[in-house]
Amino acid sequence: MNSESKYERLVHMLRQQANLGAALALLEWDQETYLPSGAIDSRVRQIGALSSALHRERTAPEFLNLVDDLATRPEEFNADQAVDIRETKWKLDRQRALDEPFVRQRAELHAHARNVWISARRDNDFAALAPYLARIVELAREMAQRIDASRFAYDVLLEAYEPGATTATLRPMLEQLRDGLVPLVERLRIRATRPSATATVLCGDFPIEAQRQFNREVLKILGFDLTRGRLDEAAHPFSTSIGDDSRLTTRYAANDLRYGLFSTIHEAGHGMYEQGLEAQAWGTPCGESCSLGIHESQSRLWENLVGRSAAFWEYLLPLARRFFPALENVSVAAVAHTVNEAKPSFIRTESDEVTYNLHIILRFELELELISGTLRVVDLPEAWRAKMQRSLGIEPPTDRDGVLQDVHWSCGDFGYFPTYTLGNIYAAQLMQKARTVLGDIETQLSRGDCAPLLEWMRVNVHRIGQRFRGTELIERATGRAPDTDALLAHLENKVGFIER
Amino acid sequence: MNSESKYERLVHMLRQQANLGAALALLEWDQETYLPSGAIDSRVRQIGALSSALHRERTAPEFLNLVDDLATRPEEFNADQAVDIRETKWKLDRQRALDEPFVRQRAELHAHARNVWISARRDNDFAALAPYLARIVELAREMAQRIDASRFAYDVLLEAYEPGATTATLRPMLEQLRDGLVPLVERLRIRATRPSATATVLCGDFPIEAQRQFNREVLKILGFDLTRGRLDEAAHPFSTSIGDDSRLTTRYAANDLRYGLFSTIHEAGHGMYEQGLEAQAWGTPCGESCSLGIHESQSRLWENLVGRSAAFWEYLLPLARRFFPALENVSVAAVAHTVNEAKPSFIRTESDEVTYNLHIILRFELELELISGTLRVVDLPEAWRAKMQRSLGIEPPTDRDGVLQDVHWSCGDFGYFPTYTLGNIYAAQLMQKARTVLGDIETQLSRGDCAPLLEWMRVNVHRIGQRFRGTELIERATGRAPDTDALLAHLENKVGFIER
Repeated sequence: MNSESKYERLVHMLRQQANLGAALALLEWDQETYLPSGAIDSRVRQIGALSSALHRERTAPEFLNLVDDLATRPEEFNADQAVDIRETKWKLDRQRALDEPFVRQRAELHAHARNVWISARRDNDFAALAPYLARIVELAREMAQRIDASRFAYDVLLEAYEPGATTATLRPMLEQLRDGLVPLVERLRIRATRPSATATVLCGDFPIEAQRQFNREVLKILGFDLTRGRLDEAAHPFSTSIGDDSRLTTRYAANDLRYGLFSTIHEAGHGMYEQGLEAQAWGTPCGESCSLGIHESQSRLWENLVGRSAAFWEYLLPLARRFFPALENVSVAAVAHTVNEAKPSFIRTESDEVTYNLHIILRFELELELISGTLRVVDLPEAWRAKMQRSLGIEPPTDRDGVLQDVHWSCGDFGYFPTYTLGNIYAAQLMQKARTVLGDIETQLSRGDCAPLLEWMRVNVHRIGQRFRGTELIERATGRAPDTDALLAHLENKVGFIER
Repeated sequence: MNSESKYERLVHMLRQQANLGAALALLEWDQETYLPSGAIDSRVRQIGALSSALHRERTAPEFLNLVDDLATRPEEFNADQAVDIRETKWKLDRQRALDEPFVRQRAELHAHARNVWISARRDNDFAALAPYLARIVELAREMAQRIDASRFAYDVLLEAYEPGATTATLRPMLEQLRDGLVPLVERLRIRATRPSATATVLCGDFPIEAQRQFNREVLKILGFDLTRGRLDEAAHPFSTSIGDDSRLTTRYAANDLRYGLFSTIHEAGHGMYEQGLEAQAWGTPCGESCSLGIHESQSRLWENLVGRSAAFWEYLLPLARRFFPALENVSVAAVAHTVNEAKPSFIRTESDEVTYNLHIILRFELELELISGTLRVVDLPEAWRAKMQRSLGIEPPTDRDGVLQDVHWSCGDFGYFPTYTLGNIYAAQLMQKARTVLGDIETQLSRGDCAPLLEWMRVNVHRIGQRFRGTELIERATGRAPDTDALLAHLENKVGFIER
């Protein structure tokens, strides 16, 4: 076989894997949406069987040899082919660094720890979880060592979620963000002591069936293609791609329009990214999303920078009134205040746009110390409280509201949290740049015209695939390496609005 | 490995295959229910990829060798293990008789013919389909020859759907049925010339959402377990099993309660059979359904012998009135007449319980002649018309209403049609036997108590799995080899009711 045919063979094998991955995604999507309660055990077995079939494809000697062979002579391929080979080889080398007993050991530990976490959180009993967490930290370090012993362990973990990111650039950036946010939060705390007249205009009686229809209309306005995607409901909203089929889920609260709506818009941001990937490159790195941080930039951009803007509500509110008569006498200004409420709180997933990143930075700093070995697991709850007091000015009354609130660490996901804040940083930069290119985005949004903004994202973010890593993608799209200026300017502006 | 461990290994491999098969079933179920219109191409690719992964498992040398090895010494296994080995070996030998080029050739021919059939039916152009059908008949004969050249070709095809059935017993049985039905149909034709006062009591205004709720209530009454199954909607109602999860579909007509309801009850019969299979034997022949005929016996039993009985409507009608006020002044007798309407018609899928089997017998006789070589494809339309005139007393005005109405032959499914009528024959025998054991089933049904009947089916049909083949299962359950007496008695009784 010549190089061209070998590359074609690689694409064929990657697509076979991607198709099996899509079938797996459907099993998981269905589990969260339509699976009858009594069928969960049989679903777990189906997922296990398909995962093992997929694993066999990914570790088939023919596949491994082919990738290794192609990677030895990048000069024989065009730019896109070289990307596919480089990224496939990179993932494969990480995968091969871990032998099967080690992978199984980690999977079993995380499965146990996840169960222990559920009861530990319920019982507010950090001590029950601590020995598991300690072992998980050890194994995370060992994993990093096995993959690349020459590099700082946290960097090796981080790049599983955000390829190309390093602690050396991430840490100062997040410190700067923290230092910029703390005074904003102080202003929010002062503000929060005053009574608010507008805080509840989206609370009331919002029948679920009307919300379903309204949320579908919102998807169409944003540009989400419902002929290649769906909107369903799940206890924990998420989105997934099943081949050329992008499925969003949301959850409605009958007494609060915001809950379902912002979940829907957030997931639509993820979904539109997936829908914007290059169809011809499907199944290969050139046609796959770049990183978790870039993915999150798209969900946060649409949720926060579009969905919470007064301009967009100029258009959305008259539409919403058609579904919800209760909104008849509500003003855009009142809605804008309602959807931009902000004040320090304990729980990350319930926190607002301004304080959210401080929750993330706290976790980033703690997990960096855990992996570096400068913080012991037993000291984690106390360190959590101290850090939260310093950054948010509040201290959780229990570990349940503190260190036990997230499942991530019990799953060994160290390096995952920062991608949430990277998403916010990237989103603000992308929006700032789009504004300079597209002119008056506010006027466009106030007419319900999201097409220019979406098209700009299509060209500058979606269609890139994995041709560049996250940092480089942002630099090419915006002309600036990732930095916190745009995000801080946006949030400062927002706090000013809240104070009005 | 000793024999016991080898058998355990076989079960493990069969279950891996069954789990992948379940994932495939979900891909297909989703395609018919929730797949967005623009995602069909990507779904076809996923199904292809998973089918090929499953094919690899089914043809893995380790699996083939294991089955062959175990099959050489049945004496070392207990009865159930021997069934699993025997049935697996039987399927495998059929599969191995066909090499990959032959399988691909057939699949491609059928895929083409299916498309040609769609336009041929639309354009009423049998000549366009004829050359494809001729080739399909040739390949069907060749397939039978490859599988077992020593036996009559139609027998070899038939047992793919109804293992153990033979033309030698089937043909006289269906002839007898035909001879018994023709005079009944003559009585229906006379009756049909009289005006009917009751024929439309289930036609009117039946809001779809109310039908959805009513149909779910009916499922609960029948004994279908909604914690291990679902009811959804599809253009062509079907049911499928995804592991321990039995999914039914139906289709509602807003102006006719019967359409959705009898689809639901029919599919529930299939679904309750699947739910009644032995859970511990899941994935092996002892835990799988016996045959298409036995499967159909369960759907027909609940649809026709329960769902169309006046006794069951004694219970159902008061319930239905709660959902549909239009039924307030309708009587059980009027409903019973409405759901038992019968008269000769051209289209099999729209025909009633009395005339249905004549549609099947016509097809059986024609396909038997095609495979035997005594009828040429070009002569098929004329033969169809002549046979229909003889048995149903009517002649389709076009081939669209005649020989072109079904897709089965274009898919190469020769031997499939008779399983529909076998289902009716088996159902009548099972019901007759259940009546002698359970006492007054009518009174039970009139109280909405389906549990005794379902439990009898569980024990005598569902839990048997593939321990016996269809004919033997019926003989063991009813004490009689399959014959048409019970079905003819039931239908004669029914025509008498219609005439009243």
